[in-house]
Amino acid sequence: MKLSQRITHLTGGGSDGWDVFYRARRMISDGYAVTELTIGEHDVRTDSAILEAMDLSARQGHTGYAMVPGTDLLRDTVAARLQARTGVPTIRHNVLITPGGQSALFAAHFAVCDPGDVGLYLDPYYATYPGTIRGAGAVARAIETTSKDAFQPRAEQIDAAAEGAVSLLINTPNNPTGVVYSRRTLEGIAEVCRRRDLWLISDEVYDTQVWEGSHISPRTLPEMAERTLVVGSMSKSHAMTGSRCGWIVGPEEVISHLINLATHTTYGVPGFIQDAASFALNAGSALEEQIAAPFRRRRELAVDILKAQNTVGLVPAQGAMYLMLDIRATGLGGEDFANALLDTHAIAVMPGESFGSAAAGHIRVAMTIDDERFAAALSTICEFATDLANRPAVAS
Amino acid sequence: MKLSQRITHLTGGGSDGWDVFYRARRMISDGYAVTELTIGEHDVRTDSAILEAMDLSARQGHTGYAMVPGTDLLRDTVAARLQARTGVPTIRHNVLITPGGQSALFAAHFAVCDPGDVGLYLDPYYATYPGTIRGAGAVARAIETTSKDAFQPRAEQIDAAAEGAVSLLINTPNNPTGVVYSRRTLEGIAEVCRRRDLWLISDEVYDTQVWEGSHISPRTLPEMAERTLVVGSMSKSHAMTGSRCGWIVGPEEVISHLINLATHTTYGVPGFIQDAASFALNAGSALEEQIAAPFRRRRELAVDILKAQNTVGLVPAQGAMYLMLDIRATGLGGEDFANALLDTHAIAVMPGESFGSAAAGHIRVAMTIDDERFAAALSTICEFATDLANRPAVAS
Repeated sequence: MKLSQRITHLTGGGSDGWDVFYRARRMISDGYAVTELTIGEHDVRTDSAILEAMDLSARQGHTGYAMVPGTDLLRDTVAARLQARTGVPTIRHNVLITPGGQSALFAAHFAVCDPGDVGLYLDPYYATYPGTIRGAGAVARAIETTSKDAFQPRAEQIDAAAEGAVSLLINTPNNPTGVVYSRRTLEGIAEVCRRRDLWLISDEVYDTQVWEGSHISPRTLPEMAERTLVVGSMSKSHAMTGSRCGWIVGPEEVISHLINLATHTTYGVPGFIQDAASFALNAGSALEEQIAAPFRRRRELAVDILKAQNTVGLVPAQGAMYLMLDIRATGLGGEDFANALLDTHAIAVMPGESFGSAAAGHIRVAMTIDDERFAAALSTICEFATDLANRPAVAS
Repeated sequence: MKLSQRITHLTGGGSDGWDVFYRARRMISDGYAVTELTIGEHDVRTDSAILEAMDLSARQGHTGYAMVPGTDLLRDTVAARLQARTGVPTIRHNVLITPGGQSALFAAHFAVCDPGDVGLYLDPYYATYPGTIRGAGAVARAIETTSKDAFQPRAEQIDAAAEGAVSLLINTPNNPTGVVYSRRTLEGIAEVCRRRDLWLISDEVYDTQVWEGSHISPRTLPEMAERTLVVGSMSKSHAMTGSRCGWIVGPEEVISHLINLATHTTYGVPGFIQDAASFALNAGSALEEQIAAPFRRRRELAVDILKAQNTVGLVPAQGAMYLMLDIRATGLGGEDFANALLDTHAIAVMPGESFGSAAAGHIRVAMTIDDERFAAALSTICEFATDLANRPAVAS
């Protein structure tokens, strides 16, 4: 039986740098003790106060169909939050609640891309980006950023790639690089979007995890609110990854069409989860800081450990829960390095190649285990890299 | 800013028979006492034992990312359930867990339809069907069934419409008609699907609500397991509409592609909801019978009330939580009748026209209020119809 081209071509074939991840998972299920620094999942569970709010909502009867656009309470809460953080006037009708950030990314592209249109994204990228753009029927076109530029995109490169494009997807604070886009970067991006009439899809799910400088939403820049779709989520800010609750914030007209799309694709988000999210967002910044704190601490530990050696380079770790380490001095690519590290020290990290070609020769380290083990693993990674870099050249 | 053709053309413009529904909702929010018989939502909330299972799962830490295909437990439970109910061998790898039945309908069409392909569906239809097919990029083509045939589709009509089609969407027990497809109907459908090489997308979300005869899944028919995608859900069987938990059951190869699609569109379903669903499905048939019982009772009440008069016809009410009433003897269309009923008696029902053109001159009555009020409302509907039918012809 024939399947659709679109589903069979969502992702490319062959190795995509995820082999080491699956190998680590197999080792763990075979009983090996592997130090896992791969996936962006907190080492804490959702706070019990949030779970209590969820349970209370369910027991009070919020178990029937919720309104497809989201509950008034959560839409209002998200609107107020974005307005407070950005100064851009935002009301309920600018907000669609989605079952998670990934669902929001898909819906945002669906809303603006028709089959054959080009959707732009930046390399290195979060693993689902190109498939999400293709899933919405568009052609996914990557624009490489470089380690030399600390992975800040250059406006002229975006401009050069913009022919036939209708959208640009960005992510700041960035996964996988940990970079936070500067005002200058974002102003350049906004200028290209205005000139080329591009929609900007701005994935801001790490906006509460900023260690250096500050997060700027491009929706705040001149004439950008009308062409920006902001993707947000409870996952990273409130350790609610499993609750699948996110949103799109954008112009009212787009949201009204997105509500119609949601009616046909998801039919809303559980009301008790939305009530839990409303509770969490209204619990104040202390809760968010508490959830971000371990990453802030570990990032400081990491900076100190990396300062003490010269082999492994650190891409400016300004935000999000990852470090991007440059291991090119070892002479190995990211995938070979990660495989060797897993074999030798049972430490699992993601090869830069898992996130496109621009981060080749790098590894991404998730800061998602307790401080002591994290510091020990990072020291081991540095020693391992230094040994590799200093090994005598093999006579050929 | 330009939006995609696909999102702006998901649904047709103009009135679609839902005006009366929205008018009733406005009356309710304005403080009027309206008897609402519109939407397929139980008058009970999710059972507290299921909510306890959900809370327990969340507190035990099942709040992180769940596996995208679904938890092993729920996939195994759904597989075992379908195998037990149908005899068709079914394993975990035949099952994708989705955030609700609507999400499953969209994904199933996405998996088999490419842009320009025709997706068939039967009129009358559940409101989201044509938009779901269009959302997956396909052309939605309706095949009318008739009141005369008790809305059982005819194989030769499907065959006549099959040119260029890749899929056929059916729903048994049927919303909105309450009809359960007979073995003969399903064998005819299966024959067309085999001959025309069609995928059969079989929406079986009402499979626990059967009042007459028995539900047959077309996946059990010869050579149909390989070309059938069954859509199921916890919504109707377990009064978990708000939990957004459903599934697709189909051939392993399709499920593996659908998992890839889910990675890019939803990224899985909350683990604590899946644990609640597993608990509910394993709680035994008594719970399901308890949830179905009110509809079974009200349907019997309705049959008696309708027998006592000759104006309003009842389409065989064999399953699901709705009655489809033929009110053509009143001389009014479904929409005019529903509007008049709302104005005169503050009873809200859905015009048949809300579900396509084949059910014009009918109204759909949801059996979703307590028995006494339900019986009273149905008697009022009959009396109102009889008065209309017997009113003197107006001289023109």
